[in-house]
Amino acid sequence: MAKKLKIGLFGFGCVGQGLYHVLSNSKGFKADIVKIAVKHKEKARSLDKSLFTYDKYEILDNPEIDVIVELIDDADEAFNIVSYALSKGKHVVTANKKLVATHLKELYDLQLKNNVSLLYEASSCGSIPIIRTLEEYFDNEQIEKVSGIFNGTTNYILTKTIAEKISYDAALKQAQEKGFAESDPTNDVEGFDAKFKAIIIALHAFGIISKPDEVLNIGITTLSNNDINYAAEKNYKIKLVPTIKRLSENEISIFVLPKFVASSNHLFFVDNEFNGVIVDGEFSGEQFLQGRGAGGNPTGAAVLSDISALSYGYKYEHKKQKQNPNLKFTNNAEIKVYLRYTTKDSLAKFKFNAITEQYSGTDYNYVIGNINLNEIIKNKDLIKSEKLFVAVAGDEINLIREDVKAENKKLILS
Amino acid sequence: MAKKLKIGLFGFGCVGQGLYHVLSNSKGFKADIVKIAVKHKEKARSLDKSLFTYDKYEILDNPEIDVIVELIDDADEAFNIVSYALSKGKHVVTANKKLVATHLKELYDLQLKNNVSLLYEASSCGSIPIIRTLEEYFDNEQIEKVSGIFNGTTNYILTKTIAEKISYDAALKQAQEKGFAESDPTNDVEGFDAKFKAIIIALHAFGIISKPDEVLNIGITTLSNNDINYAAEKNYKIKLVPTIKRLSENEISIFVLPKFVASSNHLFFVDNEFNGVIVDGEFSGEQFLQGRGAGGNPTGAAVLSDISALSYGYKYEHKKQKQNPNLKFTNNAEIKVYLRYTTKDSLAKFKFNAITEQYSGTDYNYVIGNINLNEIIKNKDLIKSEKLFVAVAGDEINLIREDVKAENKKLILS
Repeated sequence: MAKKLKIGLFGFGCVGQGLYHVLSNSKGFKADIVKIAVKHKEKARSLDKSLFTYDKYEILDNPEIDVIVELIDDADEAFNIVSYALSKGKHVVTANKKLVATHLKELYDLQLKNNVSLLYEASSCGSIPIIRTLEEYFDNEQIEKVSGIFNGTTNYILTKTIAEKISYDAALKQAQEKGFAESDPTNDVEGFDAKFKAIIIALHAFGIISKPDEVLNIGITTLSNNDINYAAEKNYKIKLVPTIKRLSENEISIFVLPKFVASSNHLFFVDNEFNGVIVDGEFSGEQFLQGRGAGGNPTGAAVLSDISALSYGYKYEHKKQKQNPNLKFTNNAEIKVYLRYTTKDSLAKFKFNAITEQYSGTDYNYVIGNINLNEIIKNKDLIKSEKLFVAVAGDEINLIREDVKAENKKLILS
Repeated sequence: MAKKLKIGLFGFGCVGQGLYHVLSNSKGFKADIVKIAVKHKEKARSLDKSLFTYDKYEILDNPEIDVIVELIDDADEAFNIVSYALSKGKHVVTANKKLVATHLKELYDLQLKNNVSLLYEASSCGSIPIIRTLEEYFDNEQIEKVSGIFNGTTNYILTKTIAEKISYDAALKQAQEKGFAESDPTNDVEGFDAKFKAIIIALHAFGIISKPDEVLNIGITTLSNNDINYAAEKNYKIKLVPTIKRLSENEISIFVLPKFVASSNHLFFVDNEFNGVIVDGEFSGEQFLQGRGAGGNPTGAAVLSDISALSYGYKYEHKKQKQNPNLKFTNNAEIKVYLRYTTKDSLAKFKFNAITEQYSGTDYNYVIGNINLNEIIKNKDLIKSEKLFVAVAGDEINLIREDVKAENKKLILS
């Protein structure tokens, strides 16, 4: 049976307030928010003053509180709070993707060591229950690939550029005015947010612990009107698509890149601030989940679902990790990309394995061809400084076998 | 930790064979198929003879076997097997929607009484984890509506009629040749299969136990080329859409009817044998799940997922039922429909609350208007005998309040 939880809440923004409202009004829900830690003393609060504290230890050291719900912005401070709470034997629910992705291994170890539960469904793809579905439903299914639209802000911007044929800058401005993008949008538009989510999802789909530093993220800041026109001509949409793909029995790639998406792909129809996830399973085939990617209520619903699961003693079993102990992360994969370039010199920096199309015009130039992911990683700074645009232009992702052989040789020789 | 399950399997068709294959080859999966009960002694089997039995009690009375996986066609015999197994304290996994929907109350009571787990994810929407998602993820979310495409056979037929502009009969023939429809397709094309699934899903989304007899199902057998042309003109697709909708705090409607679907609806893009489910939650907003609706592997994957959950002691908690003890089923709802009719006399049999469009031509006649669901139920035989076509033509579904007041009055008076 469910037990009554005593919750200490960190952060009282729109998600926290929505959560408080739902918990107070839900019938049959067994959880009380005992105390709320906030930063700004001067802010007016909608609830009684006695409910708030400005000292985190008043919550963290309170033995009556058994669950911490962490909803603050600052990932470093969040890590202090969450790691302290876990080591004190408290269960934790968080929505903070940066926190989880950056400290995946430490948090994983901490929850094991202290035999507590750390849940973070709200960290990935808003209201879409992707982590729980992977953990519980696909626990014995061999997953081949997970891809999707994990970031609502960039999807809103990209939808506007295509639908209204406006520039990236104009669309970003609209998104900021509507509250879909922050005044410093770097985290979203450079693909960091999507990468954090991909890293978290990769753990639950494949059992791999990868590091933000090793995973490529190229965002949409260099998108030009030429690229938008190119997509429109071909009847594509441009989406920022994180991809997690098993390349072989023991190798997996993760990367975040813009992608040209045709109408035969589910993601073509995921517009505005919505998120969508495609899960390719060996037996179940292709599963597609879509839902709201951002906003107080969808995030609150995911947090609520985690709290409810805690009241039933739920924890992630991480079965995939036990099933795939030898899985290794690699960037040694060949993908097909569109590269809009400026000068021949800049193009020459990219070593393509094969070029299938090339176009030169007065307006712009592009090539389409197969390239090693490492070549894009190598040229990441160049892409930014020269405002080149790279987008995935095909679904094939292959392990570069020659290299594998060479590496095996090295292993044998050494 | 997971415990090793000893399974008795009933049925060895394509799902059963796929399941056996997966269980035998899966790494880390803790379940053995001890015995398989089959009907036909003369059939050649791919496995050793000693694994098979023709006597169900050899499995049901075997104390070593703790899990029954039931995958036979015959719903009545399946009920005998499943109810016997439950009362013997064995856990059961089944894919049989007719069995579950028809005996929902008895099975619910039996599993409670015997403190065993009955799981049936594969019964509804193939590989889409809809029941588990509703049970676990939306357990504390107030669901407003669930609708979708729950039947792959009719969706395949309807996709063909629209995409290739062929008649219903020609599309049905194609579906039968491809193995998507059985030689007697009644169960699918009359909407029974979709209804069974809707009844099962309604239990997990809302906690209501409804009976197949009280839930309207109108299928697609009377679809004419006129209706197909009408849909094409308006840029609609025709889908068979089961709908489960909360009408008020305590009232809920369930019905299966064809529906004109515009491209603004997710279901517009769910074609061929695919299934899709839209879940409207109060906080999470609209969630959409799509996946393969039929076939050995997707069904096998869902069965496998249930077996895996059993190895962790999982059972449905039926929290929704505890949260909504007063929820009642009603057909007293107003919906907007398109009705293609033959004669004025047949049209007159339908009491519309309001007619918003009418068309009369040499080819065909239709009206579009608001009507009480009960009016359609009343005329179910007429629709079939005169080959009228009814399809939902709008998203609004409203409780008929006048009637409620009248009923309340009755209650007060009596």
